[in-house]
Amino acid sequence: MDINSEIAKLDWSREPKGLYAPIGYTLEAGGKRVRPTLALLACQLFGGNEQEVLPAALALEVFHNFTLLHDDVMDNASVRRGRPTVHVKWDANTAILSGDQMLIEAYKLLSQVPANKLAQCLQLFNKMATEICEGQQYDVDFEHRDDVTIEDYMMMIRLKTSVLLATALQMGAYIANATEQQQHALYEYGIHIGLAFQIQDDLLDCYGDPKTFGKAIGGDIAEGKKTFMWLTYQSKAQSQAIHSHDLTEVLTAYNQYGVREIAEKQIEQLTTKALAYLDTLPQNEATEQLRQLAAHLINRKS
Amino acid sequence: MDINSEIAKLDWSREPKGLYAPIGYTLEAGGKRVRPTLALLACQLFGGNEQEVLPAALALEVFHNFTLLHDDVMDNASVRRGRPTVHVKWDANTAILSGDQMLIEAYKLLSQVPANKLAQCLQLFNKMATEICEGQQYDVDFEHRDDVTIEDYMMMIRLKTSVLLATALQMGAYIANATEQQQHALYEYGIHIGLAFQIQDDLLDCYGDPKTFGKAIGGDIAEGKKTFMWLTYQSKAQSQAIHSHDLTEVLTAYNQYGVREIAEKQIEQLTTKALAYLDTLPQNEATEQLRQLAAHLINRKS
Repeated sequence: MDINSEIAKLDWSREPKGLYAPIGYTLEAGGKRVRPTLALLACQLFGGNEQEVLPAALALEVFHNFTLLHDDVMDNASVRRGRPTVHVKWDANTAILSGDQMLIEAYKLLSQVPANKLAQCLQLFNKMATEICEGQQYDVDFEHRDDVTIEDYMMMIRLKTSVLLATALQMGAYIANATEQQQHALYEYGIHIGLAFQIQDDLLDCYGDPKTFGKAIGGDIAEGKKTFMWLTYQSKAQSQAIHSHDLTEVLTAYNQYGVREIAEKQIEQLTTKALAYLDTLPQNEATEQLRQLAAHLINRKS
Repeated sequence: MDINSEIAKLDWSREPKGLYAPIGYTLEAGGKRVRPTLALLACQLFGGNEQEVLPAALALEVFHNFTLLHDDVMDNASVRRGRPTVHVKWDANTAILSGDQMLIEAYKLLSQVPANKLAQCLQLFNKMATEICEGQQYDVDFEHRDDVTIEDYMMMIRLKTSVLLATALQMGAYIANATEQQQHALYEYGIHIGLAFQIQDDLLDCYGDPKTFGKAIGGDIAEGKKTFMWLTYQSKAQSQAIHSHDLTEVLTAYNQYGVREIAEKQIEQLTTKALAYLDTLPQNEATEQLRQLAAHLINRKS
């Protein structure tokens, strides 16, 4: 099943255009479609019916794009996937209202899963959606706090990034009749992959190759963000807390305490844990693809 | 069952406070609780179990307050129910994110209806939520259009105001095992009461008593809003379209064409239709209360 062509089948040409056109614009911009792909892979892993998982897979992708749309308003970001953001192309009110409708559309898609599985899918979805909002709020809160620990940070990125990947996997597995234990294993694989992904993101912002990274190096440092790198440095060099926004200066400080190596080791440990969860599951083409996804994440350059 | 004490039982003290405190603030401000009251009255009308309807009633009230929260950001309104709006007391980003979470909370509440009725309740809720967003978009669109007809306006206020009342009634009736025909009759009662309510609102803005209306007379006129009054005038006095924002001037023009009487007649006709739908239903204490609600709406001064 090609997820992009399934997303393209969704019709956003209806009236009022001011409400639906920005939804179509957001969804057609692409992206890696990681979440629906994970839901479908989980389904394949357990030999489930992809048509039954498809509504959930689409709901998760629409929900993910809803969060990006509202995040872009809140961050006042002007570019997303190489194009003007909705609040730039239209206006902030359009981004708010079309985003609200996207969240409702996600629930409409979700309600098309098999009737006997609706209640549980709804519960998983509601829990995940709540955690994403909580993660977003913690991220905002952390900007104004001086006592954020690495544990706080891991909790925040778990909510903000991991639970959506984990829920996509669990929901696909659940609809494909996996056992609770199997669903749990896939969920935890998703959690750990998500954490590794985010720390890799933090790492690339410092040490990525500008040619392949796709954006300028040092963006987090320029913004003074409390990333894994920054928090690790603070915990090591307590009396010498660094508040510089200069890339060279900050990297020199990081290098002094081996922050890069600590982050690389953390990514490796998280990935190893993620893979161990996969070992407990049936081994087939889908499991292999999930393994390759993990390998891809730790070797990626962008 | 006292709906206010049921709303007060919802716990918004959890972490992160920045996400949940604005939700508690919004819900504790009161309001008339019309929507959950309608859901419970519909339940009583058919001798249903109020405990089964309660989650839906609460979901509808939380949803309604979510729309107010996001509407206030979009309208840049600074006061709601006599208190600073969330985006004033906190900030716009808080209002956006806490609003998103409120919408998710509405779905969480809705998911607690009896399992065998969840799918249908979810479908009714999704349809209603979609129509509200569409109504809001049409309202925005109409501001920039010169060709809005009274029919367009009735369609818009049906979406923006009526469907939430109608869905509250239908959902309460559905959960209380009313027939489809009975649900339809209550739904149409809600639609017509909602339309009458909105036109009464437009009328009071022109001819209300400042002592009892609660806000300044002529707000719609000052803003140049395309209300039922304004559109009726335009349709009568085509060559003399009025663009004045002066209350006395506009009312003089309205009086010339009997706009007040046309609006009063429209309200009366809509209320009569609403009451006719009630006549087709079982007659008991709940039906009587719904009749009183209709009478109250057409005689209200604020």
